[in-house]
Amino acid sequence: MKLITKLPDLRRELSRNRKGKRVGFVPTMGALHAGHLSLARRAAKDNDLVVLSIFVNPLQFGPQEDFSVYPRDLKKDMRLVKGCVQIVFAPQARDFYPFDFCTFVEVRGLSGEFCGRSRPGHFTGVATVVAKLFNAIQPDTAYFGQKDAQQAVVIQKMVKDLDMPVRVQVMPTVREKDGLAMSSRNAYLSLQERRDALVLYQSLKSAQRMVFSGLRETQKILGALEDFIAHTSGARIDYMSIVDKKTLQPLKVIEKEGLLLLAVFIGKTRLIDNAVLKIARSR
Amino acid sequence: MKLITKLPDLRRELSRNRKGKRVGFVPTMGALHAGHLSLARRAAKDNDLVVLSIFVNPLQFGPQEDFSVYPRDLKKDMRLVKGCVQIVFAPQARDFYPFDFCTFVEVRGLSGEFCGRSRPGHFTGVATVVAKLFNAIQPDTAYFGQKDAQQAVVIQKMVKDLDMPVRVQVMPTVREKDGLAMSSRNAYLSLQERRDALVLYQSLKSAQRMVFSGLRETQKILGALEDFIAHTSGARIDYMSIVDKKTLQPLKVIEKEGLLLLAVFIGKTRLIDNAVLKIARSR
Repeated sequence: MKLITKLPDLRRELSRNRKGKRVGFVPTMGALHAGHLSLARRAAKDNDLVVLSIFVNPLQFGPQEDFSVYPRDLKKDMRLVKGCVQIVFAPQARDFYPFDFCTFVEVRGLSGEFCGRSRPGHFTGVATVVAKLFNAIQPDTAYFGQKDAQQAVVIQKMVKDLDMPVRVQVMPTVREKDGLAMSSRNAYLSLQERRDALVLYQSLKSAQRMVFSGLRETQKILGALEDFIAHTSGARIDYMSIVDKKTLQPLKVIEKEGLLLLAVFIGKTRLIDNAVLKIARSR
Repeated sequence: MKLITKLPDLRRELSRNRKGKRVGFVPTMGALHAGHLSLARRAAKDNDLVVLSIFVNPLQFGPQEDFSVYPRDLKKDMRLVKGCVQIVFAPQARDFYPFDFCTFVEVRGLSGEFCGRSRPGHFTGVATVVAKLFNAIQPDTAYFGQKDAQQAVVIQKMVKDLDMPVRVQVMPTVREKDGLAMSSRNAYLSLQERRDALVLYQSLKSAQRMVFSGLRETQKILGALEDFIAHTSGARIDYMSIVDKKTLQPLKVIEKEGLLLLAVFIGKTRLIDNAVLKIARSR
């Protein structure tokens, strides 16, 4: 496994080694957990050469957000992905965004709501860095987690709209034993907050039970969830919506399925989770 | 030479034929003239396979602009490039921009001035379509004309900022015998306007003479040009500036060289031209 920090070195290494190989790509911000590892393992299974990027992308953080304290441990990350990954690409921000950088990719209409409303500019930062990484690596397939549901939709739309020659594979959310979605930001939680954080998963489960039991009006489902979350004193809803899973347009009624998006502050830590709510149990 | 209108067909054709070949790409809006042909010829000289696109890109026209009347003659265009070009890609707008298209590439800071001020959204339209075409064709080298100076700078910046794996080659402006820059929009000019249009080239020449003769303050040069253009009753200046040729930042004084940008309405037709003003004759 090679660690590469400079783009020209990455291009040289790839042009030397990629010939005839399927190239898989896993973009990350480091602080790797089992969710990332499931992407890396799947990439290794599907491809001959796997590039994993580790880059805490300043462009996708707001000025009041956790960019400076976001967990970074390159050595540990590299140990974790050894065996699945051939190239770790970990550029420096000052190289990746030179002082005169001024080009942005904007997926209008999918970026302004939900996480985009709480985090203005976030998805433009995400789309821009992913476009750059796609161009740098030119992978056949790139792997993203369903945990960041809106991000996955935004990236898939960008790829489709801009005719990017890459296949996007979205992998299921990986969870702790008690159901909490794996997230690098879970590291911020105190013991009490770790317990409170379960309210997200419990809300998803509860919503699914309501739908199975025949409830279809999203307003009623969301109202019940609000009441439920209000009982956890350390939790504060940032947003909650049931939407079409491709267009992210809010649904009034769940006809076949709906994507429940959830963002909740647990203390100062903002956690997200989501689930596709189905009207019938899959056999 | 093959005419292809659907993106999947283009991808199939390219994946079948490109192996080991250098691919050159010439993006155009059709209505081809000697300027475009110089790009196609250069592409043919440098590459093994040349793709020329013909697409009047609705995204780069304002609502009051000439999109609907922009000259279109696919058959004539195809005759003109026969011999230089192996694939003509001429997509339909409804295929290239499906109804839910919503992703845009914005080169902020270079797109708002000059043509971008007269034509809001123009360069976002240009950058977006070129990004799409680059992704669709994946050329080694793409060819643009210096006639559209700001466009060339915007595209080069986009390629650099987004790490696009393509080389951009900018070719000199091709002119009529009397100096008028080749442009598809010259077709709009009446006989009298065709004569008036010479004021652009004459302004460039005149500015270069002023600089050779020792004038370095751009305000004085531009003032003299304003007076000169004011003498042509059918001409109205849209903008005029002397800028750094990479950053497009206006210069107060020409130290080594400056890019003179010029946009002038001749009747209802807006024409642009430009020249790099040098302080000494090149030997």
